[in-house]
Amino acid sequence: MRILGIDPGYGRIGYGIIDKTGNNFKLIDFGVIETDKKADLNSRLVEIYDKMNELISNYTPDESAVESLFFFKNVKTAIEVGEARGVILLSLQKANIPIFEYTPYQVKQSITGYGRAEKGQIQRMLKVVFNLKKNPTPDDAADALAIAFCHGNYRKIV
Amino acid sequence: MRILGIDPGYGRIGYGIIDKTGNNFKLIDFGVIETDKKADLNSRLVEIYDKMNELISNYTPDESAVESLFFFKNVKTAIEVGEARGVILLSLQKANIPIFEYTPYQVKQSITGYGRAEKGQIQRMLKVVFNLKKNPTPDDAADALAIAFCHGNYRKIV
Repeated sequence: MRILGIDPGYGRIGYGIIDKTGNNFKLIDFGVIETDKKADLNSRLVEIYDKMNELISNYTPDESAVESLFFFKNVKTAIEVGEARGVILLSLQKANIPIFEYTPYQVKQSITGYGRAEKGQIQRMLKVVFNLKKNPTPDDAADALAIAFCHGNYRKIV
Repeated sequence: MRILGIDPGYGRIGYGIIDKTGNNFKLIDFGVIETDKKADLNSRLVEIYDKMNELISNYTPDESAVESLFFFKNVKTAIEVGEARGVILLSLQKANIPIFEYTPYQVKQSITGYGRAEKGQIQRMLKVVFNLKKNPTPDDAADALAIAFCHGNYRKIV
C-alpha cells in the first residue's frame, strides 16, 4: 500500500511517499511543493491545486494522511492555511484517495512513543526507519514523511 | 459588467449575481449552494467546487466579490470555513475571474453608509435598490447580494 503524507501550508507544502508491505516500510520520495511568494494568494491556491494533482498522478498513492491544524498565532493565519488545506483536500478527494487526519501529537506518539517529542528526535527516528544517510530535510518534508509513517503504523490492514 | 458576490461557508454558500451598466444595477439571480449535511467534510469540498464551477459557467461573471472572514468562535471553525473558502477562491481563479474581497463592515458601509448597520436595514436597502417585492432571503443569499452590490459601488470603471 502506498501512502502519501502531507504537511499543509500556503508557501511550502511538505510531502512524503512511502510503501508499506506487511510490516515493512520503504521510502519512495519526499520533498516540498513551494508556491511563488511574489504571486497573490489566489494564484497560489491554483498553483497548490495543480502541483498536488501532478504529485498524485505521478505517484498514485492508495491512501493519504494529512496533518490536522489547531494552533495559530491569529485567525487570519488560520483562515489562510485553512484555504490552502481545503485545496489540498479537494485534490485528494477528487482523485478518490481516502484521507486520514492526524494531530502533531498523534504523529509524534506513533514514531517515538512520546507525543511531545522534539523535532530532532522525530527526524533521527525517520533516518533509522528509512535507512537514510542523514536526517530528512527540510522540516516540512520531514513532517510529511512522519505523517505518512504514522498512518502506516495506525493502519493495520494493508 | 456582471458581478458574482459570494458569502463563503461549508454548509451554505450564498451567491448573488448582478449586472452593472453605467450607474444602473440589475438583479440577475441570487440563492444558496447547499452541501449534503450527512456527507463527510472532504466530500462537501468537492460538492462546493463542482457547484461553484456550474454557477460560474451558467452565469459567466466578469468579476467576483467574496466576503473576508475575521471572526470565529474557535480556530476549528475558522479552519473549516477557510477550507471551503479556499475551494471557492480556487474555482474563481481557475476561471480567470478577478476576485475582490470586502469585510462585512465595508459591505454595510457601502450600502447604508453605516458600517454597523443591522441585517434588516441591509435587506430593506437591497429590496429598494433591486426593486424586489420583499426582502431577499435567506440571509446567506442576501449577504452575497449585498457583497456584489458593494463591489459595484466601489468599482468605478465599468
